[in-house]
Amino acid sequence: MSQRGAGMAADIAEQPEMYARLLEPPQTAAIAEVARVIARRRPRHVVLTARGTSDHAALYAAYLVEIRLGLPAGLASPSAVTVYGARPDLSGALVIGVSQSGSSPDLCEVLRVARQAGALTLAVTNAPASPLAGTAELALDIGAGHERAVAATKTYTAELLTLLMLVEGIRAGDGAVPEDERRALGALPALAAGALADPTAAQLAPRYRFAARIVTTGRGYAYPTAREAALKLMETSYLAALAFSGADLLHGPLAMADPDVPVLAVVGDGPGGGAMRDVLGRLGERRADVVAVSPSPVAGAAAHIPVPAVDERHAPLLDILPLQQLALALALARGADPDAPRGLQKVTSTL
Amino acid sequence: MSQRGAGMAADIAEQPEMYARLLEPPQTAAIAEVARVIARRRPRHVVLTARGTSDHAALYAAYLVEIRLGLPAGLASPSAVTVYGARPDLSGALVIGVSQSGSSPDLCEVLRVARQAGALTLAVTNAPASPLAGTAELALDIGAGHERAVAATKTYTAELLTLLMLVEGIRAGDGAVPEDERRALGALPALAAGALADPTAAQLAPRYRFAARIVTTGRGYAYPTAREAALKLMETSYLAALAFSGADLLHGPLAMADPDVPVLAVVGDGPGGGAMRDVLGRLGERRADVVAVSPSPVAGAAAHIPVPAVDERHAPLLDILPLQQLALALALARGADPDAPRGLQKVTSTL
Repeated sequence: MSQRGAGMAADIAEQPEMYARLLEPPQTAAIAEVARVIARRRPRHVVLTARGTSDHAALYAAYLVEIRLGLPAGLASPSAVTVYGARPDLSGALVIGVSQSGSSPDLCEVLRVARQAGALTLAVTNAPASPLAGTAELALDIGAGHERAVAATKTYTAELLTLLMLVEGIRAGDGAVPEDERRALGALPALAAGALADPTAAQLAPRYRFAARIVTTGRGYAYPTAREAALKLMETSYLAALAFSGADLLHGPLAMADPDVPVLAVVGDGPGGGAMRDVLGRLGERRADVVAVSPSPVAGAAAHIPVPAVDERHAPLLDILPLQQLALALALARGADPDAPRGLQKVTSTL
Repeated sequence: MSQRGAGMAADIAEQPEMYARLLEPPQTAAIAEVARVIARRRPRHVVLTARGTSDHAALYAAYLVEIRLGLPAGLASPSAVTVYGARPDLSGALVIGVSQSGSSPDLCEVLRVARQAGALTLAVTNAPASPLAGTAELALDIGAGHERAVAATKTYTAELLTLLMLVEGIRAGDGAVPEDERRALGALPALAAGALADPTAAQLAPRYRFAARIVTTGRGYAYPTAREAALKLMETSYLAALAFSGADLLHGPLAMADPDVPVLAVVGDGPGGGAMRDVLGRLGERRADVVAVSPSPVAGAAAHIPVPAVDERHAPLLDILPLQQLALALALARGADPDAPRGLQKVTSTL
């Protein structure tokens, strides 16, 4: 019998090496081929569909599509199709299903209906032989390898990297990630290893040992990180973790913030981080206990989890790493087993 | 000095009468005119943008657009445009901004950029002279009248009804809501009055007096209700209220559910409610304390808030009413003032 959390720890630790592997052929070639097909088909808009952790990767992709491709992107709820029988006209759309297992019947059904309706369909999974990959016209294997823990870590970051390379390849037109972007991505394995070597995040776990709830927040590219951090804390430590975009936090949920509700704020080094300044000020007025996940310390924050200073577009690939470590350490401190959270299985089937 | 919560109580109580007013001219004529223009322009897809409570009305509209119009619909994050300068190609799109105040600079910017990019733009506000209404090509006044409390109640349901009549008018082609739908909607004022006359929801408040967190859930058309109920409880009672679609709940957050985390489940009388059965079963296995908001009692639930049995498409206009009453009663039980929650103003400006 292995140690509690050993699986999740091993999954987390593999990510730098995984990045290095995914940034080389055959993965780069496989992504370039799919990107080329999509670029040629010139979709008018992009619809993403996913659940759980993969939904946060899809959210990241939606930002990339809007900002980098100049195409409208939206996340679709499968239930409109699967529960109410909606048959939206998807001609001209690229529909992307994201799922590590590729097994959820609702996503398969959405992609099946989309393909029938004339959409270009793409499955992004960690299971090339899965029903989802078989349903879509195009498929990408994120190549994360076997994930030991129920709580997804390396499959999440592999989804992020796959979707990033895909979008940059579509943007280039010929499917290949351009040289300057390749160079920036080439730094990821070492930066990820450096981030994981920093003990700060795990050392913060005792602060939250008796917390019943926590708020996570970020804007723009950092919002998926806030969402995924919240889900990890819920899954592994059974914390009521509420994620808000910085802007939405001000529209209501701010009332909940007080010195007894800890806040994890993901604050980048670019425009998204800049847009968080007002949010941090308002949290300060409410005397909230803010821990900043940021390249440099943030004024007024109670503590600081350092992350590498990179373009905000690449930050999601790094900022989540210490937050995965925090979730793991907190789960262990609380006596939970993050490899097998109560009530969950690795593959979730929803209709 | 008026009584704590008197404003919110008055706003809530007005809703049946408000429904009756909005179902007659001049409101029906104004909506029909806009619906006719949209139907003529034949948008290829719909992008919705909103914050806070209005985001939940936008989510409801997204389901309506997909299911009733057969058009893809997505919720756009303003930050891609306002923070990162995204300029998505929106030709062929209908872009709808929903905001009671019509004052948030980020929504105005998104509609300005969308209009420039060739989209048909529509502002749905409670403030016809607002910047948002002035920015869009088309505007609809939801006609809710002055809202007293900071926590939105009647502006939410007025947004729902406006968006519903708009979609049904577009569906009809000539802008007018068809006779059978008009007849079904005609029952709303009396059904709403009946729902508000039932004391069950307010009587449940003491159960949650010392809760630190709560989970709300629903699928399909009921999901916006779950989201809005969570926001009301956060704003007014400072509860950590987590909303999940029934399907997403199974992908991770279920681990958090145990007998000490109360669950409010919105379970309709149609396919969405049917799809909740599996979710309720799994919550039962975790011995969660479930209160069902549903037309008839739900097996295994600890308590039941009765709501009228109507088509799930119309249920959001009724199901939220007892949940508004619950939020109000809980806020008062906790000594908070729902008319002026700490840290919030009526108009929230985000960039």
